Amino acid sequence: MKISARNQLKGTIIEIHKGATTAHVSIALPGGAVVMASITNEAVDELGLGMGMAATAIVKASDVMVGVD
Amino acid sequence: MKISARNQLKGTIIEIHKGATTAHVSIALPGGAVVMASITNEAVDELGLGMGMAATAIVKASDVMVGVD
Amino acid sequence: MKISARNQLKGTIIEIHKGATTAHVSIALPGGAVVMASITNEAVDELGLGMGMAATAIVKASDVMVGVD
Amino acid sequence: MKISARNQLKGTIIEIHKGATTAHVSIALPGGAVVMASITNEAVDELGLGMGMAATAIVKASDVMVGVD
Amino acid sequence: MKISARNQLKGTIIEIHKGATTAHVSIALPGGAVVMASITNEAVDELGLGMGMAATAIVKASDVMVGVD
Amino acid sequence: MKISARNQLKGTIIEIHKGATTAHVSIALPGGAVVMASITNEAVDELGLGMGMAATAIVKASDVMVGVD
Repeated sequence: MKISARNQLKGTIIEIHKGATTAHVSIALPGGAVVMASITNEAVDELGLGMGMAATAIVKASDVMVGVD
Repeated sequence: MKISARNQLKGTIIEIHKGATTAHVSIALPGGAVVMASITNEAVDELGLGMGMAATAIVKASDVMVGVD
Repeated sequence: MKISARNQLKGTIIEIHKGATTAHVSIALPGGAVVMASITNEAVDELGLGMGMAATAIVKASDVMVGVD
Repeated sequence: MKISARNQLKGTIIEIHKGATTAHVSIALPGGAVVMASITNEAVDELGLGMGMAATAIVKASDVMVGVD
Repeated sequence: MKISARNQLKGTIIEIHKGATTAHVSIALPGGAVVMASITNEAVDELGLGMGMAATAIVKASDVMVGVD
Repeated sequence: MKISARNQLKGTIIEIHKGATTAHVSIALPGGAVVMASITNEAVDELGLGMGMAATAIVKASDVMVGVD
């Protein structure tokens, strides 16, 4: 499936931490930045996410803010 | 100000496109990825955003999804 | 691509209204409900969205609220 | 209260799963689709949500993405 | 309708600015703070929003970040 | 850092409740309203949040809905 989200950043899963219902999944991008996703435990299981897997961090443009120093 | 958002990706503004009320601002990250933010025109003016400026794309972890092929 | 979003509702595009930078796309679900998405004009063009096309409305569980009368 | 959210999908609660702070509530729509909401445990208690109750899944249009195959 | 969103801040509408598809609505709270909502033009019309009207700014807890100096 | 989010409401932290991965932080505004943020436990620790601290509730305009009676 192709989706409308403007931001689809490819990387590698470097950490998965499951809580009671919510999991934190960290994806390292090629340039060194790390993106953390907070998703349901169910999604982690259903997608079969694991350490070292290739994965895409997906973010809708309306959910991105801009900061300047 | 320091903020709780888990994802704060530093880069450079490479495009600003203003609409009637909403602007699209694109920030290139060091590794080559580009993140687009959809923010208000007011925010663009208030922060004085311009081409080539250093800027940070800020995303809350709960707004990140994970995709796998 | 498979994605972590818990809500992926299949339907048919029944309306596309483009603004200056933001478009509204309405997807009718089989049961009669209509879901409106507010996405970038760019996404509409890139995905080649058109009236009558099959499409999926995708929503992260953390973006859904519950209401009761 | 009437609210601005474009998507207000009426259905029936078919599952409630509480975690440590976050609960998952699933609402079945008339057409068969199921929408999952991730909300606070407090909200579940305050609204008195229970299995089989009529409920509305509420989603802001800016939180809906579009996918195509 | 009662909704699950943890943040329901009552105030008065002090500004409405419509764009091509998206409107900005500002609500002044009793303590002096102003909350701006970015909603669809359709929602403004459907709810009959106008200057000086009592209105509630509604925000899901998962959409609130915390900043400290 | 200055950020694009239109809503930056200054107040005082009056409650912090940590769950397995997600924490709820409540900030009282000067006018009496309370804003609850659902953020990661990590963010609570990293920012050193504590009861009685001055803090800002930050919300993007696109995450605010409007309700009327």
